[in-house]
Amino acid sequence: MSIKKSGNEFFWQARVYYEDTDAGGIVYHANYLKYMERARTEWLRLFGIEQSTLLEEGTGLVVKSMEINFLSAAYYDELLSIRSQVVELKRVSVLFEQEIYNTDKKLLLSARVRVASIDLKKMKPKAIPENILGELSRVI
Amino acid sequence: MSIKKSGNEFFWQARVYYEDTDAGGIVYHANYLKYMERARTEWLRLFGIEQSTLLEEGTGLVVKSMEINFLSAAYYDELLSIRSQVVELKRVSVLFEQEIYNTDKKLLLSARVRVASIDLKKMKPKAIPENILGELSRVI
Amino acid sequence: MSIKKSGNEFFWQARVYYEDTDAGGIVYHANYLKYMERARTEWLRLFGIEQSTLLEEGTGLVVKSMEINFLSAAYYDELLSIRSQVVELKRVSVLFEQEIYNTDKKLLLSARVRVASIDLKKMKPKAIPENILGELSRVI
Amino acid sequence: MSIKKSGNEFFWQARVYYEDTDAGGIVYHANYLKYMERARTEWLRLFGIEQSTLLEEGTGLVVKSMEINFLSAAYYDELLSIRSQVVELKRVSVLFEQEIYNTDKKLLLSARVRVASIDLKKMKPKAIPENILGELSRVI
Repeated sequence: MSIKKSGNEFFWQARVYYEDTDAGGIVYHANYLKYMERARTEWLRLFGIEQSTLLEEGTGLVVKSMEINFLSAAYYDELLSIRSQVVELKRVSVLFEQEIYNTDKKLLLSARVRVASIDLKKMKPKAIPENILGELSRVI
Repeated sequence: MSIKKSGNEFFWQARVYYEDTDAGGIVYHANYLKYMERARTEWLRLFGIEQSTLLEEGTGLVVKSMEINFLSAAYYDELLSIRSQVVELKRVSVLFEQEIYNTDKKLLLSARVRVASIDLKKMKPKAIPENILGELSRVI
Repeated sequence: MSIKKSGNEFFWQARVYYEDTDAGGIVYHANYLKYMERARTEWLRLFGIEQSTLLEEGTGLVVKSMEINFLSAAYYDELLSIRSQVVELKRVSVLFEQEIYNTDKKLLLSARVRVASIDLKKMKPKAIPENILGELSRVI
Repeated sequence: MSIKKSGNEFFWQARVYYEDTDAGGIVYHANYLKYMERARTEWLRLFGIEQSTLLEEGTGLVVKSMEINFLSAAYYDELLSIRSQVVELKRVSVLFEQEIYNTDKKLLLSARVRVASIDLKKMKPKAIPENILGELSRVI
């Protein structure tokens, strides 16, 4: 997987496998959400933020809301490029803009995704850990 | 699965299985989209609309856009209730409002989902078949 | 979902939704495993065994081994019937025979699935809780 | 993703994302099958075999049978290594041995997977295309 990070943009790639497609011959709509989460995860990893460590501490980064436009379909075996950007940073949530392109640079999907930090035991909002806030504030 | 249809509302149930959860101990966010699609599918079936027939004719009902608010989490083994309503009917698309509740009648998710009719070969918009439009127009 | 339980056999149904299919137009092979787990879960529920309670106690029923024959394909929108039977009962594991049929009573898949009881914290084998062993021993 | 091909062995890596885990805190059993299919797909790609081309020609490579031993669990965020080997080559099927390791080189899963070539329209066995047979026969 190639990684490109330019300013406050992050690019991650995902291959479309059989598991991702449906009988319409295209990627099943809910599976684009998986690609977007993989991209967010890898982008955080680049900042030294491991969600496995957060998970052990009982902190989850969970999706609170999404607006998604499905503009065009992705097909089996295509290599997709997911562009991610942080557009808003709050004490308990981060707003991402994400886009998915195919190899012809055609825009397939655009989304705004709000991710919040929660205490997984209490299932209550919890301030985003300082180190993450610090890292993210550098790219916004 | 119990079915309740009252006026222009449709209720469908989904059980949360291991396959639906993630390491946070709750339903993985993308999997709520599957529950909502099952509900739309079963609601169309109630009107005598079989998507398998549409598929054979090369017509797909695909999600064009979604706005989703994830309000509270669903847990393993919970029995969820998905409420669906048609709020707008156009020549090539239908706008659904959908909500997911747990057995305590707590609202876990609310969404607006625009579904469009497409020609799966050409991947172009295609008028919703007349019989479907007719059926849907009766409940709006 | 209709339930039939006759002697030591248990039948459970699953509808094939878009989420289950792939670009080959048929059910994606790994998804049959989900249907089989749903059937095992519902069968245990019938005996009053709630896996959510087990999970809270840190006990997981996990698949240890499987032999699966994929004999024929299931298609979008088909209603499948999953037949489950316990064929061997040990202190820490249960051996299931499971088969999946379509509405034409065509056998699509046959499998032998060994499920073991584990301590999810230690990830070590753990005796199957007495009440479950007792219930299962009645049907073998 | 790093690729290593040594003699008749092929190694491919998969990261465990939230989408792959379940409420037990580990990878959901059916999802290991996805990792194995990704590995087979990438291994064929290395030989210049694109399954998207096969799909357009109406040929599918489908799993006919599997024997899987789930030996140990994979956790969220782990980077897994999937080892694949062709152990038998027939006119209509290929037998793979596949193993999954974590970064500590612990064996988590071993499997034998028979993949068959089928005509997706007729859903009948179909000889594996000559070019694929030729390529595969070089590594067995």
